[in-house]
Amino acid sequence: MASESKESSAYNPGLQATPDDATKSSFMQHTTFRIKDPKVSLDFYSRVLGMSNELYLDTYLEAVAWAVLLSHRPLGNLKRLLKRLDFPEMKFSSYFMGYEDVASAPSNSVDRTAWTIGQKATIELTHNWGTESDPEFKGYHNGNSEPRGFGHIGITVDDTYKACERLECLGVEFVKKPDDVNMKGIAFIKDPDGYWIEVFDLKTIGSTTAGAA
Amino acid sequence: MASESKESSAYNPGLQATPDDATKSSFMQHTTFRIKDPKVSLDFYSRVLGMSNELYLDTYLEAVAWAVLLSHRPLGNLKRLLKRLDFPEMKFSSYFMGYEDVASAPSNSVDRTAWTIGQKATIELTHNWGTESDPEFKGYHNGNSEPRGFGHIGITVDDTYKACERLECLGVEFVKKPDDVNMKGIAFIKDPDGYWIEVFDLKTIGSTTAGAA
Repeated sequence: MASESKESSAYNPGLQATPDDATKSSFMQHTTFRIKDPKVSLDFYSRVLGMSNELYLDTYLEAVAWAVLLSHRPLGNLKRLLKRLDFPEMKFSSYFMGYEDVASAPSNSVDRTAWTIGQKATIELTHNWGTESDPEFKGYHNGNSEPRGFGHIGITVDDTYKACERLECLGVEFVKKPDDVNMKGIAFIKDPDGYWIEVFDLKTIGSTTAGAA
Repeated sequence: MASESKESSAYNPGLQATPDDATKSSFMQHTTFRIKDPKVSLDFYSRVLGMSNELYLDTYLEAVAWAVLLSHRPLGNLKRLLKRLDFPEMKFSSYFMGYEDVASAPSNSVDRTAWTIGQKATIELTHNWGTESDPEFKGYHNGNSEPRGFGHIGITVDDTYKACERLECLGVEFVKKPDDVNMKGIAFIKDPDGYWIEVFDLKTIGSTTAGAA
C-alpha cells in the first residue's frame, strides 16, 4: 500500500478522496496567452517550438500528390493551426496551436472548432487587434515580476541540452540555461511576449529533482 | 486542397511551413500557477474540478482488496497527486495535478517525477511556503486586470450547463455564467487564487463560435 506516499490525501490536506462522476470526462484543453503580434508568435510556436506542424492530408490522392511534391520542393502551406477564430465585434482573434495531429481534423470550419476543443494540451494565443502596430502599446505582463501570479508553461522535449543548443542558435531568449545555477538539466526560455516556458526531458528530470521527490 | 483555409500558413503570416524534426517528440506538459494555500487549491482542483481522482492500485491483489472495501465504506486515501515536489532550500513545493490516470504511475518517488513529466496537460501548483498564514500577503495576480497577460486555462467538460449547475452548488465564483451576454454555452469561473478557468463542451462550442469560425 502506498497510502502514506507524498502524493496521498493523508499527506496533502485538501486533496479530496471521493471521485465525483460529474467530472470524469473533463480534461485540460488549453492555456491562453494574450499576444502582441500573431505574425511573431505564430512563427515562434510553429517554427521554434514545433507546434501544429503535421501534414494535413484531405485524401489519399492528396497524400500521394504531396509525397511527389515534397521530393521536389520545400513544404508550402502544410503547417496548420488547429483552429483560428476571429471575433470582429470584439476585435480579437484566437489562434489554437498544439502538438496534436491535425490529420484527423475536419475541414468544415465549425466542426473543426469542436474538434479543436476535443484536443488536450493546446495553446490559445489571443490577439487584440492593433497592438502589433500601436506605438503606445506597452506589452503584456508575464506574471513573474510584481504583481506575480501565472508562472510558466512546461514543454517536455526529447533532450534538454540538444533542444537548448538549437533554441540558442535560433536566437531564443533564455531565463535560465540548463547548466545555470541549480536544477541542472532544466531550462527556461521566453516566448516573444516574455512568457516563460520551461524546457525539460524525461531522462534528467528524475535525478535533477531527486532531492525534492 | 484546403491550403486557403483560415488555418493555413498562406492565411497566417508567421506560421512556418517546414516541420523541424528536432521538435517532433515535444509536447505541452504543464501550466504553472502560484497558489496561496495548497489545502484550499488541492481541494478545488481535486473535488471541484476532478483532477487526479483515479484509483491507484499497486497490485492486482490491492485492486481486489479495494473492490471489497469500496463496497463497504467511502474512499479513503485514494485520490493522488500526480507528483509532489518539495524544495526546502528554496522554500516552495510543487503539486502536479491532472486528468491523467495515475494507475500506471510508479511508486518509486524519483521515477514518479519522470512519469509525471511524461503526462500531457497537467497543472503545476506552486506554493511558496508561508503565504497561507501571512497576513501581509496580498494574493496573486490573475493576468486579467492591469497589467494584463496570461488569460485563463480551459477545461472541456461533458455538458457546460450541467457542470455549471454543479459548480454553482459548490459555491464556485463565476466570471461569466453560460447564458450571460454573448458566447452562450461558455462559462468562466475563478479558482481559489482568482485565476480564470473557461468551461465549455464539444456539443455547443461549434455553434456558439460559428460566426468566428
